[in-house]
Amino acid sequence: MSQPAPRTLGAVLYPQFELLDLYGPLEMFGALDQEIRIVTVAESKGPVASTPGVETVARHDFRDCPPLDLILLPGGIGTLAQLGNAALLDFLRKRAGEAEITMSVCSGSALLAKAGLLDGRRATSNKLFFQVARSQSAQVKWITAARWVEDGPFATSSGVSAGTDMALAVIAKLYGRERAEQIAIRTEYSWHRDADRDPFARYLDQGIVPPATG
Amino acid sequence: MSQPAPRTLGAVLYPQFELLDLYGPLEMFGALDQEIRIVTVAESKGPVASTPGVETVARHDFRDCPPLDLILLPGGIGTLAQLGNAALLDFLRKRAGEAEITMSVCSGSALLAKAGLLDGRRATSNKLFFQVARSQSAQVKWITAARWVEDGPFATSSGVSAGTDMALAVIAKLYGRERAEQIAIRTEYSWHRDADRDPFARYLDQGIVPPATG
Repeated sequence: MSQPAPRTLGAVLYPQFELLDLYGPLEMFGALDQEIRIVTVAESKGPVASTPGVETVARHDFRDCPPLDLILLPGGIGTLAQLGNAALLDFLRKRAGEAEITMSVCSGSALLAKAGLLDGRRATSNKLFFQVARSQSAQVKWITAARWVEDGPFATSSGVSAGTDMALAVIAKLYGRERAEQIAIRTEYSWHRDADRDPFARYLDQGIVPPATG
Repeated sequence: MSQPAPRTLGAVLYPQFELLDLYGPLEMFGALDQEIRIVTVAESKGPVASTPGVETVARHDFRDCPPLDLILLPGGIGTLAQLGNAALLDFLRKRAGEAEITMSVCSGSALLAKAGLLDGRRATSNKLFFQVARSQSAQVKWITAARWVEDGPFATSSGVSAGTDMALAVIAKLYGRERAEQIAIRTEYSWHRDADRDPFARYLDQGIVPPATG
């Protein structure tokens, strides 16, 4: 029996990305080792430092990145600098236009919005920097209370941990619900299956920034 | 007011480590950017490939690794090969003996057990390879139903996602419960706070391996 061609998932890296934004989803997609090939891409090849300094290697740059079926764009404090990076925004516009599904986690949706990709669509972002996302485009229907939002070829999640739940939902859509449930069990992950249930929505307008150190 | 000296957390890498074993905890510890410095260490410096191929850079090898207050040892399919790696086992024995807390996630506890570090202690491991851990030492009191287990300077977690819950518990112990709760909220993470509640224990003796692809 012939197998369908594997999909290629491009994990888009930039300095000071948020670790779990990237690696929660990659844990889940990585379980599909026969069906999905994961590639890393950044503006320049080589180590890309996350916020706490731990580095992930980008094996591709924007020029030699292979065709992508799936795109995963993490958020993080580094998002703020990337909002002014035309090379990244151009890459996202071009590649999202060709991809089957483009996913963002946390403040990654601010970059998709800045690139104009979410205009006319529903999307969400993280609680801590929701205003950053919202201010990128008034043409996006921003959903403040959602674990994740799917609209057409885009899936955007709330902050950090929510990306893992979104990833399993995308896996369910592409490979079936049973497969997603099996991956959750194997990784001993309590999957939040309801995109509309957001246990953190109540913190959006509260002071969730922790006090200064000391 | 003088600050206490930051702690150094050593993330121990080896080929085919499980991504979320490492990065769930690092997300949480990484939020303590004033209190904890994260370093990566492996037998050899340079990129270390996880199971799906994505590489993390080890900045230190076993010889030049700085003193470690905290150790984080992920599991993964690569554990099996490392059970025969005397250099890694020696490193773990030496460094765990000096550390304040040594943490393992998933099958990482098999390596701690093989090194003899868990003899006489309670510990847990992941469901999928529990027998691998158990077979390393009969002197360990293996707990089959636990999200994580703390015993003296060791904390061992169940599979993959459980490591994140354990990390928050260690943060609560070192920096206070309130701090851990704040980090969970900021990362929009639904923390499993009860070490003894294990929603996946029932799968231990069932067929949780998914069917072959296709």
